[in-house]
Amino acid sequence: MRTVQVELGDRSYPIYIGPSLLPETGSYLEKHGLTKKSTHLIVTDEQVAARHLDTLKQSLESQGYTAVVSIVKSGETSKSLAVYEEVMTTAIQGGLDRSSAVLALGGGVVGDLAGFVAATYMRGVKFVQIPTTILAHDSSVGGKVAVNHRLAKNMIGAFHQPELVLYDMDTLQTLPAREVSAGLAEMVKHGLIRDAEFAGWCRDHASELLSLDREALAYGLERGCSIKANVVSADEREGGLRAILNLGHTIGHAIEAVGGYGEFLHGEAISIGMAGSAMLAVKLGRDASIYPETVSMLKALKLPVVLPEHLPTDELIAAMKHDKKFTEGTMVFIVPDRIGEVSIVKDIPEALVREVIEELRRKEPEHV
Amino acid sequence: MRTVQVELGDRSYPIYIGPSLLPETGSYLEKHGLTKKSTHLIVTDEQVAARHLDTLKQSLESQGYTAVVSIVKSGETSKSLAVYEEVMTTAIQGGLDRSSAVLALGGGVVGDLAGFVAATYMRGVKFVQIPTTILAHDSSVGGKVAVNHRLAKNMIGAFHQPELVLYDMDTLQTLPAREVSAGLAEMVKHGLIRDAEFAGWCRDHASELLSLDREALAYGLERGCSIKANVVSADEREGGLRAILNLGHTIGHAIEAVGGYGEFLHGEAISIGMAGSAMLAVKLGRDASIYPETVSMLKALKLPVVLPEHLPTDELIAAMKHDKKFTEGTMVFIVPDRIGEVSIVKDIPEALVREVIEELRRKEPEHV
Repeated sequence: MRTVQVELGDRSYPIYIGPSLLPETGSYLEKHGLTKKSTHLIVTDEQVAARHLDTLKQSLESQGYTAVVSIVKSGETSKSLAVYEEVMTTAIQGGLDRSSAVLALGGGVVGDLAGFVAATYMRGVKFVQIPTTILAHDSSVGGKVAVNHRLAKNMIGAFHQPELVLYDMDTLQTLPAREVSAGLAEMVKHGLIRDAEFAGWCRDHASELLSLDREALAYGLERGCSIKANVVSADEREGGLRAILNLGHTIGHAIEAVGGYGEFLHGEAISIGMAGSAMLAVKLGRDASIYPETVSMLKALKLPVVLPEHLPTDELIAAMKHDKKFTEGTMVFIVPDRIGEVSIVKDIPEALVREVIEELRRKEPEHV
Repeated sequence: MRTVQVELGDRSYPIYIGPSLLPETGSYLEKHGLTKKSTHLIVTDEQVAARHLDTLKQSLESQGYTAVVSIVKSGETSKSLAVYEEVMTTAIQGGLDRSSAVLALGGGVVGDLAGFVAATYMRGVKFVQIPTTILAHDSSVGGKVAVNHRLAKNMIGAFHQPELVLYDMDTLQTLPAREVSAGLAEMVKHGLIRDAEFAGWCRDHASELLSLDREALAYGLERGCSIKANVVSADEREGGLRAILNLGHTIGHAIEAVGGYGEFLHGEAISIGMAGSAMLAVKLGRDASIYPETVSMLKALKLPVVLPEHLPTDELIAAMKHDKKFTEGTMVFIVPDRIGEVSIVKDIPEALVREVIEELRRKEPEHV
């Protein structure tokens, strides 16, 4: 088993990565001091519940824990205030108190939703992440939790760190290919922003990663979590540095908002966004190789790099202006300086962003 | 002008108490470094808007600030997730960003609602309190913000400290008598938990307080805020000590929940609750004078001390079990040891609570 420690002072916590962890959840909760006197809440989605809920429940019961369960629909549409209220109702009716914990069993959607419930139920209770997707290696580090407003993604949320993260590799084995790729988008992103060698490793081991080879996956998740943990430790509440984690997210979030949250997986949208950021970098005078190199890495992981025709530029720009990175009237982008290093660039002219969007829509360049 | 400093490390903030502060809001925002580049949000209710919104808007405009406004219905029913979502919509459509602030112009309801918006909009933006009720002297200290769930009060919330509190005494002069009394309930509560002399002062100056004498009111607010600030400084997130501020709230919240949030003002409900806690204290063996003394102080401030007939005991008990103070299966009460001192008592038998509720319903005892 591998352990990544996220260092955040008295909010520090470990991420356990390994096989056969889910059936041991009860023991881990005990190890981390969660009370058996209070009822806990499991939040999961329909697909994950069908595969893993019984294992989790049995593990809790065997250690003397009691829990109520809230099963939400699979997909981004569950990150709504309406679903949030339903989960709150289950928590209240289940009698959760201030010593209770909310356990998120699932991917990023479940983690974000359950985390926001944990952050705000009785002004905050304990939170445990049990990610079942590769994408969730990203959202399980750093304590960002949120639901969507119909006008913009992740607009309503909090910072709320988990007590522990249990990353059972076995739960990843049933992921559909599209979700595997989408998850690897965040993994390679961590290389692109801080570790050129790791970005190269992701490309070179793309076939192992795509076929869910346990060794490659365990290393990739550990490395991805570690890079993110370092950034978050330095800037928990996104005063500055942490924003670099948003590489590809300005355009990516706009694609999700305009396409509707169902059309693109988050990882697919930010893959197109990262291609766009790389193109922007070249337009801003960075080395011309950044764009084709970035695109080749993304394509190796079977990720999209071209913007679909049916998303109007004006709507994408309007959505970007609702983005949280749009501050004090200027457009902010995370721009690669080279592979493995990025800058936060403010005051990007809107015309340049339009140019990038238009070019992203064309067939990919010949030289890629 | 009087200033109470709430000491919370890097989240410390001042409460300014004095006349003619509202027209100076713009200057105070500038003094506290709020940006003029971003749009801010004013949250207020219909009644307060009619009296004070223009003054606030003019003050902001005169200093070069821009703000959008969300006006909610007056009353506790606005502390709902539905209204919260509406205010969020106004914030997004108004283009608030991470440098924006949410200004709460109103009483406790507006403060709690606007504060929860500030705590969770884009995972947290700045918050400014401009209380217009006496009751709000309590909620403006300590950063507790929340909305109600239909099953229980303040169940959904956060801890989010304001940047500053502007307490303009002039805005209190138009308060209806019933709201004046209800506000004084929290004031005398601060005496009852930590300062017997101040509790006595409240009783002895009841007529000045009830007639909104500015000198008496300014002193009472300063003292009330100071006591609360001391408690909150020692225990910001209610690990232990801070719970003493909940004197009267276990029964009080149950009365509000069962009566419907419209029937009782919060201060009225906790007044009955404080009478109940004093009765419980005597039943637990504390000095028999605690109950009549407490009741006489509350009555001096024209507050109710008798539980209405139409609230069924079973429903009140059930509501208490949804209370946040109900932890790990035991009933927790804040119990007076004497006037000016309280203890947090766990494991109060349900039968004893029932006894208190039944007795609270009878006409007040002869000896009071």
